[in-house]
Amino acid sequence: MEAKVERLQRDIEALAQFTATPGAGVTRFSFTPEDRAAREYIKAEMARAGLTVREDAAGTVIGRREGEVPGPVVMVGSHFDSVKHGGPFDGTAGVVAALEIARVLQEHNVKTRYPIEFIAMIEEEGGRFGGGLFGSRAMAGKVSREELLRNKDAQGISTAEAMAAFGFPPENIKAAERRPEDLKAFFELHIEQGPVLEAAGIDVGVVETIVGIVEYEVEIGGRPDHAGTTPMTMRADALVAASRVVQAVERLAREAGGGAVGTVGRLEVAPGAANIVPGRVRFTVDFRAKDGRTLADLVAGLKTALHEACQGELTFTLTEKLSVPPVVLPEAIRALLVREAEARGISTKVMLSGAGHDAMVMAGLTDVGLIFVPSRGGRSHCPEEWTDYAALKKGVDVLLGTILQIAEG
Amino acid sequence: MEAKVERLQRDIEALAQFTATPGAGVTRFSFTPEDRAAREYIKAEMARAGLTVREDAAGTVIGRREGEVPGPVVMVGSHFDSVKHGGPFDGTAGVVAALEIARVLQEHNVKTRYPIEFIAMIEEEGGRFGGGLFGSRAMAGKVSREELLRNKDAQGISTAEAMAAFGFPPENIKAAERRPEDLKAFFELHIEQGPVLEAAGIDVGVVETIVGIVEYEVEIGGRPDHAGTTPMTMRADALVAASRVVQAVERLAREAGGGAVGTVGRLEVAPGAANIVPGRVRFTVDFRAKDGRTLADLVAGLKTALHEACQGELTFTLTEKLSVPPVVLPEAIRALLVREAEARGISTKVMLSGAGHDAMVMAGLTDVGLIFVPSRGGRSHCPEEWTDYAALKKGVDVLLGTILQIAEG
Repeated sequence: MEAKVERLQRDIEALAQFTATPGAGVTRFSFTPEDRAAREYIKAEMARAGLTVREDAAGTVIGRREGEVPGPVVMVGSHFDSVKHGGPFDGTAGVVAALEIARVLQEHNVKTRYPIEFIAMIEEEGGRFGGGLFGSRAMAGKVSREELLRNKDAQGISTAEAMAAFGFPPENIKAAERRPEDLKAFFELHIEQGPVLEAAGIDVGVVETIVGIVEYEVEIGGRPDHAGTTPMTMRADALVAASRVVQAVERLAREAGGGAVGTVGRLEVAPGAANIVPGRVRFTVDFRAKDGRTLADLVAGLKTALHEACQGELTFTLTEKLSVPPVVLPEAIRALLVREAEARGISTKVMLSGAGHDAMVMAGLTDVGLIFVPSRGGRSHCPEEWTDYAALKKGVDVLLGTILQIAEG
Repeated sequence: MEAKVERLQRDIEALAQFTATPGAGVTRFSFTPEDRAAREYIKAEMARAGLTVREDAAGTVIGRREGEVPGPVVMVGSHFDSVKHGGPFDGTAGVVAALEIARVLQEHNVKTRYPIEFIAMIEEEGGRFGGGLFGSRAMAGKVSREELLRNKDAQGISTAEAMAAFGFPPENIKAAERRPEDLKAFFELHIEQGPVLEAAGIDVGVVETIVGIVEYEVEIGGRPDHAGTTPMTMRADALVAASRVVQAVERLAREAGGGAVGTVGRLEVAPGAANIVPGRVRFTVDFRAKDGRTLADLVAGLKTALHEACQGELTFTLTEKLSVPPVVLPEAIRALLVREAEARGISTKVMLSGAGHDAMVMAGLTDVGLIFVPSRGGRSHCPEEWTDYAALKKGVDVLLGTILQIAEG
């Protein structure tokens, strides 16, 4: 059994049309006309593939195919929302993979022991309301009513208001929750959003670990002196100190190895005039690694670098903004995915996921398998985001074969 | 003959009241109600000191005391505009010095061979219209009518419109021009705006050289990759490269010595998100040094640093925004200032001026003497800007004695 590449292409192209920014990438925020149009397309394709279609209380689309027994259920899918000016594959590729698997199973009149649910999650990116991973967090019971009132879009509309207007009563949110005992596994196909697979010439990445993330906000305080009249030896230049820390973050991540990364992505200088010595610099530090020990070492290294950079009159504060522990995915599932690929002559690479995905949240509920297909040039979250359809098909085929084994088809 | 400290204090305190931001420092932009109030105070004080008061075509206030011969004229003064939320001494200290010298000469009924003009310049800071050094540039014939139309304030009002509304027909601007043969010398007292005099415990700085300035805008281009999914070895991080250049600018200036300074004061990162590798960084580089050779070496060092930092996929552009050559002030005038101070038991230090002042422009017209009085903590352009009145008096006394010699009183 194999996926059909032309159907994958048709789905991707069709869904790419549902954008608020035609000609400037895919912008498909949750509970908007574009969401509605994409949702109707997905529901229609699911119904055509013989699935029983419903939407859960969070707005996630679920197409169900019954098995010989009523449960537990095998799930497969990804999200169908996008970032602003994003590309046609992020999330959508995994939704399209699920649609295609449903079609292939129908064509071959496959019977499975366990039911299968084909999933199109909502608001994974958090593009409209912030937060993100909304559909999977709702399944895990981790979305509170308070969050629905608090998280607002750029127009000041709360998630609760947008849901109500769209037809999902926010007071029902807890009904989206799924019990671990009702789930057998969750599978997600996603584009890599990085350059590793393409550079290595590998077809499919099998994720071993979703990296842990720590994010800090750092503020270095110096003194905003006149750039012309203050000798070099009498300055407390916050940017000179911050630039040492930027160097240290890069060096620490390189030296840690094992796929660890460290990034200063945002940095602001005050007062920010050409002729004033920087008096204050604020910046973010984002570290990701596959184990908690490495993360702890990176943070310790950052603190050392800050102490070394901020001598004399320079001061600093360090505020933790985010701390997500690494998630190791079950080895048995990974082994199944790799063997299925080998049997089909598809090359694989065991790798890290450097980004969070719905699979990360679902791993708190059930066994999870996450695979990547190559991203051209590693680009994502931009209109240029691209995955060749033939490459996408290979990922879908690996998922198809593996799901058949788990669902005992 | 000596200045009276209580009159200096009275003038400073009176002029500090003419601010658009009471309680938040002195904000006295040109051609505003605050300008009008300060101008009327200065004109009244000049008239009371027996001067013949006029305003030139640029709006600079000039009080004249005749000599035995009609010219050339000795000038003394500074500017009376301020930056936004500035302090009570920047510029004003030199205007008050001029007022006090006029009063002392009147009290002692001094006759001089050459006439003396007491000057309160306008728009030196460029706080309202940008550009700056307006009063002195108008005297040097360097303000074009086109500039008056082009330079606009935050409300879109051009210099020409503001001048016309205030009573200075902009089409007359060339009438402010002074001929070198009509001038004997220009003296300016200014606050140091730096920490050197206070740290050294010296009363008065005698400026040897007004430093040359080169300012560049640098843009480093990299690639805005996902911070989670892009391995350290596959990045083109514009901020990591820029931070190397920030380090280099600081090191180059330190190593150059001789009072050279180098500053990256403004730096902007794009896209500027915690989870995106910086794809573009724009920043300023400001170098100042007392000789052109050192400046050229600093710029060469910057270029080398940029080439070293921007390997592989990183690119850079370097755009010159400003280039002002150093100005060495006449040794004879400096020697007079130092000897006058010595005779009065006032300590002096020969120093650089790291900032541009009206004296820099006037040096293109005539012999110039520029002295500094200490700034507490080196602070300037802020409400905390402060110079002790007793320290200000010492500077005024040095200027008074020197002017008497030059004017042959």
